[in-house]
Amino acid sequence: MKKELLMTPGPSQVPHEVAAAGAVPIMHHRSGEFKEIYGKLTEDMKKVFGTKGDVFIIGSSGTGAMEACVVNTLSPGDKVIVGITGKFGERWQKLCETYGMNVVEITKEWGDIVTAADVHRALDENPDAKAVFVTYSETSTGVRTPIEEIGPVVDKTGALCIVDAVSALGGMEMKMDEWKLDLVAAGSQKALMLAPGIAFLGVRGEKVWKACERSTIKKFYLDMKLYKKAVEKKSYTPFTTSVSLCLSLRAALDMLFDEGLENVYARHSKLAAAGRAAVTALGLELFAKFPSEIETVFKVPDGIDGLELLRIAREHYGVRVAGGQQPYKGKIVRIAHMGYCTGQDLIQAVAAIEMALVELGAKIEPGSGVRAVQEELLK
Amino acid sequence: MKKELLMTPGPSQVPHEVAAAGAVPIMHHRSGEFKEIYGKLTEDMKKVFGTKGDVFIIGSSGTGAMEACVVNTLSPGDKVIVGITGKFGERWQKLCETYGMNVVEITKEWGDIVTAADVHRALDENPDAKAVFVTYSETSTGVRTPIEEIGPVVDKTGALCIVDAVSALGGMEMKMDEWKLDLVAAGSQKALMLAPGIAFLGVRGEKVWKACERSTIKKFYLDMKLYKKAVEKKSYTPFTTSVSLCLSLRAALDMLFDEGLENVYARHSKLAAAGRAAVTALGLELFAKFPSEIETVFKVPDGIDGLELLRIAREHYGVRVAGGQQPYKGKIVRIAHMGYCTGQDLIQAVAAIEMALVELGAKIEPGSGVRAVQEELLK
Repeated sequence: MKKELLMTPGPSQVPHEVAAAGAVPIMHHRSGEFKEIYGKLTEDMKKVFGTKGDVFIIGSSGTGAMEACVVNTLSPGDKVIVGITGKFGERWQKLCETYGMNVVEITKEWGDIVTAADVHRALDENPDAKAVFVTYSETSTGVRTPIEEIGPVVDKTGALCIVDAVSALGGMEMKMDEWKLDLVAAGSQKALMLAPGIAFLGVRGEKVWKACERSTIKKFYLDMKLYKKAVEKKSYTPFTTSVSLCLSLRAALDMLFDEGLENVYARHSKLAAAGRAAVTALGLELFAKFPSEIETVFKVPDGIDGLELLRIAREHYGVRVAGGQQPYKGKIVRIAHMGYCTGQDLIQAVAAIEMALVELGAKIEPGSGVRAVQEELLK
Repeated sequence: MKKELLMTPGPSQVPHEVAAAGAVPIMHHRSGEFKEIYGKLTEDMKKVFGTKGDVFIIGSSGTGAMEACVVNTLSPGDKVIVGITGKFGERWQKLCETYGMNVVEITKEWGDIVTAADVHRALDENPDAKAVFVTYSETSTGVRTPIEEIGPVVDKTGALCIVDAVSALGGMEMKMDEWKLDLVAAGSQKALMLAPGIAFLGVRGEKVWKACERSTIKKFYLDMKLYKKAVEKKSYTPFTTSVSLCLSLRAALDMLFDEGLENVYARHSKLAAAGRAAVTALGLELFAKFPSEIETVFKVPDGIDGLELLRIAREHYGVRVAGGQQPYKGKIVRIAHMGYCTGQDLIQAVAAIEMALVELGAKIEPGSGVRAVQEELLK
């Protein structure tokens, strides 16, 4: 019998009621009934983003929403500051370079973060920068960037603060307006508990729309103005939207609001604390210097094959966790605890990793990580 | 009690087994299991496209796949020929103009088609044209463009033949290679019987890839080369794909192949013949001069309010058909019979329209349209 627990940083587990909500006879996207649902969804998503601005639902992966941030607000030759601490910071860089921006990098080693002081310095040195790009939870390394400190620094300048919250939104606190974040991109298949397929774009206000007016990059499917116009005309979506995923989103938001967003964030924090406690109890080393709340990342001990560790956890113990990307392939293990994830799930994951480590000859005490999770949960 | 029959040209009805196939615990898009499914999907989609080239699955609406055709193969200033016979021809025009192409229009009145002779003439007059854009089934008017005649004409020149088959694919015969079509865009929520959310791009071969080399337009999420590279590297998808819709696609393709593609096309032809017979029997006028097989469009009789007709069919008789778009709003009615649609569905739709017409005081004989459908089905 095969039963797999998905503990990867996207896709993540989808609750049965969320999956089932989308598996109904299809509704026409221009029907009054669907428009009402869709309008309510975008209003409710504003609560999750923490903005009184706009939230648009885009039929794409998270990368589509990230690309929308770039192509709507900037022009070739614009100077931009990009914080790079892992694979998704590199994606901002690649997107900006693709569109001919002049990229000033703030590069830190993987596992480290970009701080408000780093951004302050970069903006001082580059007062002509048009935007600052950062990654809230960099899932390739498991760090949390202090966007609540970076936003206010950027806000004092003419630059836009643009945030990748693809994996974080719904699992980690987000206060776009209070934190002065101009554009925030998010995905469906992470903390929001949906299947992949839709992405979200939060827009704080006038500073963004003025930048849109200046942008000379051509776009159509990702043209934010078409989305804005559609909302204003009450047709809500300029192109045929993913009806089934929107219905799933309704179910997911109902679950999040029933639990209460504050409680959702507290659950993620608790899981993160428990994950870190397990790693420490096992005598392993945490990889992230400033850990995110949706993921725990540890270094594979010397002499252990990290890819084999993943395979054994998956094939022998039914737990799928993620390995490292690019330079860290085989070197780190990433346990995601985002979205539809409980303490019991984390116990399973830690137990599977313990057993895989034992199989590979690591000198760890099986059960010690699990006990650390339990102690944290019992607090 | 509310029960609605969806007979609109997208979204269309989704079979229960197709919807249910996507409502399962989510699978990781980089897992071996999913890669196997995905690889088989793209191979099977080649059968539906009738190509030995490539088929890419894009997480977007059909418009995303259309935009991919433009941004990957052309450059600003390129001369292109666009066939415009309705709203979706206009979308090609808008896309090309957005990206700075020099658009030569072949405009026909709504309800008419662009012929191979029209394209021949336009290419003679514009030997420097880089591409010809046409719409296979123009759902705003219900016509079928003879792409099997147009492809070979374009093939003799240096131009690419680029086809919008967003609504047609899966319901109308498609032989990309035999008909010399270079790029074909398709959607999920039409004849392919899925919920909206993914789109398909068929690529015939070298002529397209050479054009891609020349293109100077910037792109990232829609960059075909990233999709091609992903297939070659066996990772199949450059960005997180819509896992649940892909699983639904597997179920939809199983249904199409079980029925047999030839039988699927024959069913659509029969429904189209029956739809036309019903319109004629009711003394109404067909709108499309060269009707498509996935839709029947008729003119609203003089003195009848077309929007009321739609409302009554929907609210009193539970059948949702579509009205006209733009200049034809309220002037025509579009009955889609695409994808998961049977003769019994068409009977219901025709009966509802008859009753709505009677309610509005039209001088028609209720039941005569239904009888015409029955006679066609009995043949």
